Amino acid sequence: MATPKVEFRAWMAEVQTRVERSLERALPAAGQPPKRLHEAMRYAVLGGGKRVRPLLAFAAGEFTRAAPERLDAVACALEFLHGYSLVHDDLPCMDNDVLRRGKPTVHVEFDEATALLAGDSLQSLAFEALASSRLADDPAVQVEMLHRFAVASGTRGMAGGQAIDLAAVGKPLTVPELEYMHILKTGALIRAAVVLGARCGEPLGALEFDRLDRYAKCVGLAFQVVDDVLDAEAPTATLGKTAGKDAAQGKPTYVSALGLGRARELARQLRGDAHAALEGFGARAERLGDLADFIVTREF
Amino acid sequence: MATPKVEFRAWMAEVQTRVERSLERALPAAGQPPKRLHEAMRYAVLGGGKRVRPLLAFAAGEFTRAAPERLDAVACALEFLHGYSLVHDDLPCMDNDVLRRGKPTVHVEFDEATALLAGDSLQSLAFEALASSRLADDPAVQVEMLHRFAVASGTRGMAGGQAIDLAAVGKPLTVPELEYMHILKTGALIRAAVVLGARCGEPLGALEFDRLDRYAKCVGLAFQVVDDVLDAEAPTATLGKTAGKDAAQGKPTYVSALGLGRARELARQLRGDAHAALEGFGARAERLGDLADFIVTREF
Repeated sequence: MATPKVEFRAWMAEVQTRVERSLERALPAAGQPPKRLHEAMRYAVLGGGKRVRPLLAFAAGEFTRAAPERLDAVACALEFLHGYSLVHDDLPCMDNDVLRRGKPTVHVEFDEATALLAGDSLQSLAFEALASSRLADDPAVQVEMLHRFAVASGTRGMAGGQAIDLAAVGKPLTVPELEYMHILKTGALIRAAVVLGARCGEPLGALEFDRLDRYAKCVGLAFQVVDDVLDAEAPTATLGKTAGKDAAQGKPTYVSALGLGRARELARQLRGDAHAALEGFGARAERLGDLADFIVTREF
Repeated sequence: MATPKVEFRAWMAEVQTRVERSLERALPAAGQPPKRLHEAMRYAVLGGGKRVRPLLAFAAGEFTRAAPERLDAVACALEFLHGYSLVHDDLPCMDNDVLRRGKPTVHVEFDEATALLAGDSLQSLAFEALASSRLADDPAVQVEMLHRFAVASGTRGMAGGQAIDLAAVGKPLTVPELEYMHILKTGALIRAAVVLGARCGEPLGALEFDRLDRYAKCVGLAFQVVDDVLDAEAPTATLGKTAGKDAAQGKPTYVSALGLGRARELARQLRGDAHAALEGFGARAERLGDLADFIVTREF
């Protein structure tokens, strides 16, 4: 019989395959004009990435017994938004990066104007995915989901975090400042992944919701700490993006702020906090727990 | 007693003032971090522009007796999306323009990275505005409104039109090709303005809806034709943006495709078509008719 770990890996692979298919379907066809723009959007989104945010949405959806078709839409929205942020962050006026997921970045493969428009269009498409079909029994809940997603995208979320990140280049940040930046830059969308996935299913009590949200906060931060550790440790070939880049650009990271050992210790601690938030939830929170483990122990 | 024209101008000024206040409130405060990003967003949106899309939404809202508070939210969404498109279109990798609404463009006044993020954040904020409060009696209608807005923003709308525009530089387009580009680039959002404004109020019959949509298509196209005429005729000081730029950049325009006389004639014809679409609607469509006149006869 398969150990739980093997069973979890199989679930993960299944969700990843399912998400890839949904993305493929939800993206405009490459042959449809404006072709170059559509090609760039598909290039940015398809065939790469761990799909961590969709995995979190599916795990949270299992928790509330959500219909998988609804989770497909949420997964697409999350990956479109995440994909847009990568395309724009890689642009010359931002991080100026040439390698992403082991391939040339969009502005290198296409051109800057196309990369700009592809990112813009992926953001629109993310909202379109969330508004194309019924995602909650009560449409008012769906409006709330769209609102939460918009907030997680904007200056109180992802874009705000990126602005703080840009302003921080070359400046030492304190650990609380660093944490604040990451809570916005990656944390907001990871929390949205968990909350939106859960909202597709049965209604949650306020207490359950708070604990799920606490889990999401811990996982979001752990994800970033591990990212910093991997950036400092792993070779470029394994990462699929330029390794050691943050340090080279003088960007504050958990490793530069805490050192490698304490950064690893923090990741372990956040993993423990994530599990604590799920305590007593039983089998239906198992995937969420497994995902916390995966996020902290991943090697790429 | 005031003539209708004077009365219409007063209504327009009132809506414009009201919209400015709503935008002011809905934008993040400049003093709130990330400050530079918030300043750039406010710079991009406040204190300029004719607010044509909000005016259309308010006029359509009068047609369906919509609550003004709902129209405020729609107006903000429209101006945030429009503002984002201007900021990104002006970037060096796109139209590379330095003047907009009589002021330096955002990337000139701030920097490219901030302009990129400000545009990105304005797009998120547009969706946030549409999802922050109840905009229709039936929340399912609001989800539909969000869907329509997302489609109007993406590759089947504004961003798609911009991609076609970029690809067309230096190539002569036929009038149907030019029309197709503008239907996407500016037409989609103008149609969304009318439809979203109307959707905030009493439900429309299918026939009424189709005629309102036809009105919006004519007005959207007329707006662009007049833009091209003004770009060819008016001095930079009047326009508040670089005049004659389209021709200088080898961009196809209605003036380059038809000549000035026939472009003016087309605008007049579209104005007639817009009025025809409203026929029999009576007094509650008066603002929409007046706006069609304003859009065609404007001088800036």
